[in-house]
Amino acid sequence: MLSKNRLKYLKSLQQKKNRQEEQLFLVEGEKPLAELMQARQWRVVFWGLTPFFVEKYAHLIKTYSVEYELLTADELHQLSTLEYQKAGVAVVSMPANEPIVAKPENYTIALDNIQDPGNLGTILRLADWYGFPQVVCSPDCVEVYNPKTIVASMGSFLRVSTYYTDLPAYLAQYASLPTLGALMEGENLHKTSLPTGGILVLGNEGHGISPAVQACLTLPLTIPRFGGAESLNVAMATAVFLDRLAEVAH
Amino acid sequence: MLSKNRLKYLKSLQQKKNRQEEQLFLVEGEKPLAELMQARQWRVVFWGLTPFFVEKYAHLIKTYSVEYELLTADELHQLSTLEYQKAGVAVVSMPANEPIVAKPENYTIALDNIQDPGNLGTILRLADWYGFPQVVCSPDCVEVYNPKTIVASMGSFLRVSTYYTDLPAYLAQYASLPTLGALMEGENLHKTSLPTGGILVLGNEGHGISPAVQACLTLPLTIPRFGGAESLNVAMATAVFLDRLAEVAH
Repeated sequence: MLSKNRLKYLKSLQQKKNRQEEQLFLVEGEKPLAELMQARQWRVVFWGLTPFFVEKYAHLIKTYSVEYELLTADELHQLSTLEYQKAGVAVVSMPANEPIVAKPENYTIALDNIQDPGNLGTILRLADWYGFPQVVCSPDCVEVYNPKTIVASMGSFLRVSTYYTDLPAYLAQYASLPTLGALMEGENLHKTSLPTGGILVLGNEGHGISPAVQACLTLPLTIPRFGGAESLNVAMATAVFLDRLAEVAH
Repeated sequence: MLSKNRLKYLKSLQQKKNRQEEQLFLVEGEKPLAELMQARQWRVVFWGLTPFFVEKYAHLIKTYSVEYELLTADELHQLSTLEYQKAGVAVVSMPANEPIVAKPENYTIALDNIQDPGNLGTILRLADWYGFPQVVCSPDCVEVYNPKTIVASMGSFLRVSTYYTDLPAYLAQYASLPTLGALMEGENLHKTSLPTGGILVLGNEGHGISPAVQACLTLPLTIPRFGGAESLNVAMATAVFLDRLAEVAH
């Protein structure tokens, strides 16, 4: 049993303000917790696990000498932001915001003012699937440690590095690299020969890439439309772009 | 002002059971309502609009002689399943479940047991964008008239036909067409020459395509993975597949 004060403290990490103050964030759900246990470079300050998880993953808990507290169903319900999960939560120390070095032989993904935490998590999952594990975010992007982002990333936050920084300044630093951007009026993605590495920029859900960042693009690209829908969601557009870039980059 | 009973009746359409009994469904939000007004083949039995919408779309209301009731903020809040919207709701008559004819010169999309209403809506939006406006659903797919599906489709439900039917029987009927399927162990999507038309099958979020439907596939395909993520969400996989198929089909 957790004390009332401890429970209250852990639960407070559901709020951004408290996460930032404490530099801690929550990881929830069965698979992400099992992956986190095996990812040694993360500092976990608290494991709250259910009897179900402890039994199913006894081998991992033993192998990694995990010290945990057993959670009651009610404690899990209070600590977790998910309606349905029966595994537990971990509290993890945020890594430092370390600069990401864009390399010419692979793609770095740059996100300009992405607002929806689910979209950011989905983009991390796609970046992980396609082998582009570097994501640079503008300071006005949603926080990568938002519980919804962590959940939507399905454990990919463990393998994809993120770095929050001013995008125009970052892109200016890499002015020699091809800088692709997803726009409504660019070159046809299907008919353009794509560089084998560089930076891909994706923009805000409603307004796309901001003018200051657009000015840094060397290759504006558009997913061709064949039907009636007005737009694609940014996560869907990311899927399509990364699939094309992975084909040429890897 | 709507009467208490009328409000209760309209609100009841948020439940599947009532939608099925009445053969009516809800459309919500600014853009979908504006698109619905211009799509004359749909029978709308009720327009509940806010003063904001009525002012902004006065020209549409006049052009299409729309008879509406003004909704108060409280009525809108009760009728709508969305937390934030200021436009209104419409109640629309469900079209009949009419058979879809798969044609060799384009792709028909077949969905096997898709459970998440947001995924189905996103798939409709993608199908619309890429010009594949025919979607056949297995009977155990989530209902296309679920409010979350309608909202996620962003108006694309107006342009994409859906048909619920037994999938193995449907595919048997079109045994002469190429039948592609998204699987974990199929041919590499990037390295396979794709037919210019046929049927593309996408499967359940957790279990993929069921064995009975797998038996009907002529071309099992896989999106190549270059990194660490275990899987892609079905809506992301649909984006990648349709982007590749649109390139060869159109």
